[in-house]
Amino acid sequence: MATSSKKPRRTAQRILEVTLDLFNRFGEPNVSTNLISSELGISPGNLYYHYPAKEQLINAILAEFEIALAELAPQAQDVRHVDDARIFFRAWFEASWRYRFLYRDLSDLLSKNRHLEQQFRHLLRHKQQAVETLLKGLHQGGALKTEPQALGALSTTLVMMLTYWLNFEFVRNPRRTADASDVNHMVHNGTLHSLQLLSGHLSDEQRHRLRSFSDTGI
Amino acid sequence: MATSSKKPRRTAQRILEVTLDLFNRFGEPNVSTNLISSELGISPGNLYYHYPAKEQLINAILAEFEIALAELAPQAQDVRHVDDARIFFRAWFEASWRYRFLYRDLSDLLSKNRHLEQQFRHLLRHKQQAVETLLKGLHQGGALKTEPQALGALSTTLVMMLTYWLNFEFVRNPRRTADASDVNHMVHNGTLHSLQLLSGHLSDEQRHRLRSFSDTGI
Repeated sequence: MATSSKKPRRTAQRILEVTLDLFNRFGEPNVSTNLISSELGISPGNLYYHYPAKEQLINAILAEFEIALAELAPQAQDVRHVDDARIFFRAWFEASWRYRFLYRDLSDLLSKNRHLEQQFRHLLRHKQQAVETLLKGLHQGGALKTEPQALGALSTTLVMMLTYWLNFEFVRNPRRTADASDVNHMVHNGTLHSLQLLSGHLSDEQRHRLRSFSDTGI
Repeated sequence: MATSSKKPRRTAQRILEVTLDLFNRFGEPNVSTNLISSELGISPGNLYYHYPAKEQLINAILAEFEIALAELAPQAQDVRHVDDARIFFRAWFEASWRYRFLYRDLSDLLSKNRHLEQQFRHLLRHKQQAVETLLKGLHQGGALKTEPQALGALSTTLVMMLTYWLNFEFVRNPRRTADASDVNHMVHNGTLHSLQLLSGHLSDEQRHRLRSFSDTGI
């Protein structure tokens, strides 16, 4: 009985993995449910049984992404120095890379899918909270000289960076392959540019530390 | 004779205006050439005579956008204070808003259209140059305390802001109408957040000036 109840769940999970891969490779608008079922080697009816429409697939993948970010967010509490912030931003960009189709087609997706629209607003709010927690931690650790409240628009700009940096990398170099070293490079750039936003507000020692990242690579 | 030679040019221009409006309203992937000709009240054959494929329409609109930005860019040379920078960023965001479909569907457009891919890389390079010129001007005017070279990644981050801010506004509030006051609000936000990036590097007087923008609205 255990096996039979587990099997549909495994199929559902496999469907999500293959769908995510196809969405990331070709862009969500260019992937039909027929392509998904043929890639999986299952019948359209079987796919339909698990996910009656593409919208449900998208929403299920978004739910996974939300869980990944919800697991990451509490780590912002422990950030005290730019080294911690670097690790945090890196992990955030890596999660965003795994679900990159969402960002690539974001405006299009949001205009078609109401549920997604609401969920994305929550997600942005959580991102904003995580960034504010991180800035508070840096201030507490003495790395940030300026009071977080006095940074004004900067926390929103950081959220914007976390949201769009990988898109910007794509626009700068659309032909870049997506192999591990390229991904590493893009994630590195995003992390570095995010930290750089704070440079004018860091203690001298931490600014020096930040400069060492750009020279050596992260 | 003057009239007959002018007429096709006028039609071509009208086609571009209506196409731009449709692309902005519905997103380029959702606008067919049939929709364009029917909106114009001309035959598909007449549209085809001027623009044999949607790609040509996109490229012609991009060329217009490039001209708009090329006319703006030299103004970066005259920027000395945050007030000048504010006017410059505002104008840049306003031009980007006029051609917003390009940014909304950018990744998708670039993956389909080779010409666009090359042109967009030029455009990013020109943006980068304009931003660097602006930073140099601010330093020359005494508004920026830090040498532009020492700002490191910050100029690229500004380019990124100029490229994606309006998308970010859409994601934050997809149901916002696009009436004049909303557009003004989005452009104001983008301008403010761009200037805020520099806050840690501004002279005290100019930082104070910047703070007054956020209180009063721009």
